[in-house]
Amino acid sequence: MLFIEKAEQAHSLLHELDLDCWLTFVRETGDRPDPGVELVLGTSITWNSAFLFGKDGTRIAIVGRYDSENVRATGVFPDIIGYDEDLRESLLVALDRIAPSQIGLNYSLHNHTADGLTYGMFLLLQELLDGTPHAGKLCSAGTLLAKLRARKTATEQQRIKAAVATTETIIANLTPQIKPGLSEAAIAQIVHQEFEQRGLASSWDWDYCPTVNSGPDSPAGHVQPQDDILVEPGHLVHIDLGVRQEEYCSDIQRMWYVRRPAESAPPLDVQRAWDTVIRAIEAGAAALRPGAIGWEVDAVARQVIVDAGYPEYKHALGHGLGRTCHDGGPLLGPRWPRYGDAPLQSVEVGNVYTLELGVATSAGYIGLEEDVVVTADGCEFLSTFQRDLMLI
Amino acid sequence: MLFIEKAEQAHSLLHELDLDCWLTFVRETGDRPDPGVELVLGTSITWNSAFLFGKDGTRIAIVGRYDSENVRATGVFPDIIGYDEDLRESLLVALDRIAPSQIGLNYSLHNHTADGLTYGMFLLLQELLDGTPHAGKLCSAGTLLAKLRARKTATEQQRIKAAVATTETIIANLTPQIKPGLSEAAIAQIVHQEFEQRGLASSWDWDYCPTVNSGPDSPAGHVQPQDDILVEPGHLVHIDLGVRQEEYCSDIQRMWYVRRPAESAPPLDVQRAWDTVIRAIEAGAAALRPGAIGWEVDAVARQVIVDAGYPEYKHALGHGLGRTCHDGGPLLGPRWPRYGDAPLQSVEVGNVYTLELGVATSAGYIGLEEDVVVTADGCEFLSTFQRDLMLI
Repeated sequence: MLFIEKAEQAHSLLHELDLDCWLTFVRETGDRPDPGVELVLGTSITWNSAFLFGKDGTRIAIVGRYDSENVRATGVFPDIIGYDEDLRESLLVALDRIAPSQIGLNYSLHNHTADGLTYGMFLLLQELLDGTPHAGKLCSAGTLLAKLRARKTATEQQRIKAAVATTETIIANLTPQIKPGLSEAAIAQIVHQEFEQRGLASSWDWDYCPTVNSGPDSPAGHVQPQDDILVEPGHLVHIDLGVRQEEYCSDIQRMWYVRRPAESAPPLDVQRAWDTVIRAIEAGAAALRPGAIGWEVDAVARQVIVDAGYPEYKHALGHGLGRTCHDGGPLLGPRWPRYGDAPLQSVEVGNVYTLELGVATSAGYIGLEEDVVVTADGCEFLSTFQRDLMLI
Repeated sequence: MLFIEKAEQAHSLLHELDLDCWLTFVRETGDRPDPGVELVLGTSITWNSAFLFGKDGTRIAIVGRYDSENVRATGVFPDIIGYDEDLRESLLVALDRIAPSQIGLNYSLHNHTADGLTYGMFLLLQELLDGTPHAGKLCSAGTLLAKLRARKTATEQQRIKAAVATTETIIANLTPQIKPGLSEAAIAQIVHQEFEQRGLASSWDWDYCPTVNSGPDSPAGHVQPQDDILVEPGHLVHIDLGVRQEEYCSDIQRMWYVRRPAESAPPLDVQRAWDTVIRAIEAGAAALRPGAIGWEVDAVARQVIVDAGYPEYKHALGHGLGRTCHDGGPLLGPRWPRYGDAPLQSVEVGNVYTLELGVATSAGYIGLEEDVVVTADGCEFLSTFQRDLMLI
């Protein structure tokens, strides 16, 4: 049902964007996944294959004969052509039938979730269309793909929410086990056991999902939790994790403070940093609504951090969350060259975002990350906003 | 160690192919895997990243700051530059240092395992190099990637052999459980339990690895095993399966015949078809040696089938096997348009292949698949050649 829901959304987008035809041109998607295949097909294909959506409602799949049964079973494509030796002729017949003025392909300079077409396949497609009336019609369907992915349907929102709930249960199970002497690697192992018991994949690479940081000497970033860094009194413990459940991801960061003997609360500088992070995320959430521009939402949160005298975080406030952990779409991030045009785009209803940022303190890194969905007049938290440091 | 082994092989290939520089240009490889990253890095990266190999022995990685620790931990790249806002300047400095006349990129029209660069990333790279002396130097490193992947090192061969051995153990455990009344889906479930007990992934999509076919009415191809097709006396039972173990795949097909009451052997037409399949695979294996052209090896086996009066199989005799099940490289297949130039290439020492083909009979599909490695003067079976139908 989900794939048919998304296929119908794709047809609406062809109208909205006034694009005659969307073509996903792929092979061996088990090894080289493509965003179009992920969103509307949900099974993998082997030989060179073409999936065509016409603005007129046409949906045609041209696939190798051994894949045709599986594609049929998805129920998404009323017209399925299974070929043996060459797909060229069937592709030209299908394009003649749709008679498009433009053919949108899966590529995008700045959104990796709309960029599945390989350069080799692009060249091959040019070769196949060479000398036909369709040769000059190729263009990017990046905007269609980006919106198709980022506008989460009710089913998609519900699945992300469920993945977040599972993650929060795992955090709740972990909390009583955190104590001085435990290594970062041991904490990661506890989390991995929770994943395995549920038969769940991690949202990103298993080796550093979760990342775990205890104390000020732990390296930040996408780093494997260390065997030789142990939780100590006076440490902040930080975790960044997510699960992939029913093909949809969560992504949250949570924090504990391990009290020293006779300490009832974190040191003042830690508490001040924590309060600042909370205020920054609140400010970002307050600015997040349909029509807001990505970089503006980031700037609001970033300003809170800078005004409090902390250095800027070196990443975006929020990224799309869904089928993948970094799910593309308008980015709530600064206008840095490496983000391209992603922060220049407008937020839409149904977009799901992380809101995340952090600062370094003498007790370790403070990083917090919540997951939210954009509603008609603002946003709604899918995670339970951690407003207080958990104390160990 | 494996990745360093492959990185050294890459440097030799730059010399052999007289290419000054190999550039892997990628982002978010957790979602969009790239063959270059798979072969020499083995960890995933997030932001736009460049991995450069110079013919002079240079190896430079330019990655987002949060990925730099992980890339350092691989030990493959002596020079690692972690960036925050933009990789352009570091990329130009690195290219100036290598001063190449050509820059090879990861794309290929006809080999998907050498085709990781997306069209969006290609356009972005053009934009980054625009106006610099490196702008006109881009070319395909497809041949380098194809050879790097297909020439399996000793470590790689040993891993594939181990994956094949595990698969044969699973088959041996399955045989006594096959009996009339069992559904195709139930057989697949037994195999899946064997995979799960060992914590192994399937070589291709879980849903149709294994494929299972019992009797003449079972649909062929990449199809999920059916709930309502049951093993019956007089059926051929066919299975196609593989495991991914230590990142390397097996891929074999095995066959049983379920005797009718009072039947001691399969019917004559079944036995004749089986013997033909065996002879065809033997003939293919005998023709497989370094320097052989892919399509010629296929033609030898195909001719045995045709001479015996059966229709040609609608696929290649053999595909490369390794990190992925369809691992690219010279294809042992016919010169059909959809295979492009893959069947025109020469076989090399260290290539690992499947040898597979089949024919339909009144009792069901006969398909057999073995795995072999190319040696200095021929080939060696990694699997235990099934010369006789297993009788139930």
